[in-house]
Amino acid sequence: MKIYFSGAIRGGREDAELYAEIITHLQQYGDVLTEHIGQMDLQEKMITDKEIHDQDLNWLIESDIIIAEVTVPSLGVGYELGRGVEMKKPTFCFHRSEKTSAMVSGCPDIKTFKYNSLLDLKVFLDEIFQKL
Amino acid sequence: MKIYFSGAIRGGREDAELYAEIITHLQQYGDVLTEHIGQMDLQEKMITDKEIHDQDLNWLIESDIIIAEVTVPSLGVGYELGRGVEMKKPTFCFHRSEKTSAMVSGCPDIKTFKYNSLLDLKVFLDEIFQKL
Repeated sequence: MKIYFSGAIRGGREDAELYAEIITHLQQYGDVLTEHIGQMDLQEKMITDKEIHDQDLNWLIESDIIIAEVTVPSLGVGYELGRGVEMKKPTFCFHRSEKTSAMVSGCPDIKTFKYNSLLDLKVFLDEIFQKL
Repeated sequence: MKIYFSGAIRGGREDAELYAEIITHLQQYGDVLTEHIGQMDLQEKMITDKEIHDQDLNWLIESDIIIAEVTVPSLGVGYELGRGVEMKKPTFCFHRSEKTSAMVSGCPDIKTFKYNSLLDLKVFLDEIFQKL
């Protein structure tokens, strides 16, 4: 099982520690292709934006499932969700905020969950992977 | 010419006045399907998120060109860009911030411009539409 985890990078790193916790939890279910998103000291290597885009897009194409934490608004996460929907990938989004974008919560091909605690989120994830 | 203009809604309305200026400028080139994005008092009507999604997606499908202001990070704008790229729509993004998402600036199917003033932006838009 190849898992594409999506979280904000340039949009804001305030949830980076949470992303790391989610990624660790996901790793019991498969290979998290985007493991670097949880790195607290994530540095952009000396690669171009096109190289970042193409690498991430290849991982998206290769993935079996997309899991996104969408509380911090992110253009990149939205882009990945839009492309993932067109690729018919099973896609699950999680947010702590009261609402998320109507383009995500209103998308019939994305399942969106509001959660309060990391424990809640882990329970949702366990249910999703147990049903696959 | 049907123009899909994309800007942040739930992600943050601090640029709403700017969006209105952009939309007014775009209207000389065609019909801006998403004219409401520039409304300062934009209220979500009593419609569901699915209705918002499906309406916007239909406009996206119908459009000839996508113009997005991406300075305020927005999940919905990113989603629209991702779907637009898959639909092979000509897509142009504008930001005042130093950088925008690598998924957008690094995407070979999106043209991204950094600008400083509304005047700059209008000049870029005029060049784009004159070349179409």
